[in-house]
Amino acid sequence: MKSSARNQFTGKVSSVIPGPVNAEVELTLASGDRIVSVVTMGSAKDLGLAVGTEATALIKAPWVILMTDESGLKTSARNHLRGAVSRLVKGAVNTEVTMQTAGGLTVNAIITNESADSLGLDIGTAVSAIIKASHVILATQA
Amino acid sequence: MKSSARNQFTGKVSSVIPGPVNAEVELTLASGDRIVSVVTMGSAKDLGLAVGTEATALIKAPWVILMTDESGLKTSARNHLRGAVSRLVKGAVNTEVTMQTAGGLTVNAIITNESADSLGLDIGTAVSAIIKASHVILATQA
Amino acid sequence: MKSSARNQFTGKVSSVIPGPVNAEVELTLASGDRIVSVVTMGSAKDLGLAVGTEATALIKAPWVILMTDESGLKTSARNHLRGAVSRLVKGAVNTEVTMQTAGGLTVNAIITNESADSLGLDIGTAVSAIIKASHVILATQA
Repeated sequence: MKSSARNQFTGKVSSVIPGPVNAEVELTLASGDRIVSVVTMGSAKDLGLAVGTEATALIKAPWVILMTDESGLKTSARNHLRGAVSRLVKGAVNTEVTMQTAGGLTVNAIITNESADSLGLDIGTAVSAIIKASHVILATQA
Repeated sequence: MKSSARNQFTGKVSSVIPGPVNAEVELTLASGDRIVSVVTMGSAKDLGLAVGTEATALIKAPWVILMTDESGLKTSARNHLRGAVSRLVKGAVNTEVTMQTAGGLTVNAIITNESADSLGLDIGTAVSAIIKASHVILATQA
Repeated sequence: MKSSARNQFTGKVSSVIPGPVNAEVELTLASGDRIVSVVTMGSAKDLGLAVGTEATALIKAPWVILMTDESGLKTSARNHLRGAVSRLVKGAVNTEVTMQTAGGLTVNAIITNESADSLGLDIGTAVSAIIKASHVILATQA
């Protein structure tokens, strides 16, 4: 598989909560991090997603929100990955930010230059990557 | 809270429709505007979302569609904010568009240059920001 | 309707699966391609979505993942459009990729330059556009 999704995290399905239209699927990565995805039940059945299935979460860089101060905050986004900025690439409108988590994951985000400035991002800045479960695509080997 | 989401709207929860996997949550802002979000039930419970809870909607600029002519059109996107363009920043591929609503909200969108040209966007152009409920993240104070 | 969504596909609703919060709606295009969308039930009712209704799917370019090798892969994304790259516009951070499908659809994606390089994209490269159902907005004439 070669995909343009800058974030690809492989792990094993650790829980599936089915619903009439959607299912909530949790993936546990080798790093111990957990990624929650909401997929349609049609997809969950088609992929044969069950506890133990190996799957890869695909998340594009523009779907990731970065936070520098989560103090006293809770969000509805099911995925929070904490780490430090390791790379910044600035364009005319957008900045690409790469962060490394303690568990060894590399997370890429595209944010506006104004946000990068406002957050004061630099190499080493502590940041959290916030990803909504409905933004996560799951892939399995057929 | 400091986040890279260019759109952050604070208000009070005015309705919660629970489901087996997801909940639909409506936020009413001080401006009178309403923002609808679909979050997982896990998040709704974890955040204690109920009528009256103060919460902030986080929406990244690339998740916003702009329309210049909504005449005779209905969309499945639950969030439509009407206003006028107040700022345009053009890059090589993307343009960042800022609009102000009558109620005083500032909404930021990232669209392609081709779309900006095709819509004929200029300072003062009347536009609608269209945002899908499943794209809205909610945050509360812990 | 004039919108900044670079991908607008018009067709007829071919199936609706209702749920307590969300509905899964399938659109069949004139090209024979099918687009699956997850919308809130509130929207499905408001738009009067039923088998036979004409509707347009709106999908922004940053919501599209491109894959060059799908061999042995299944994804939870309900929408897979296969085609070939017809145009590349490179910026400082992002590349805009246009592809044409065999059925005659034009699909636009925004991906990072690093992804464009890593996938080895050039005019004529075979690619698949992967779009999650929860990213698709539906529009109808009022």
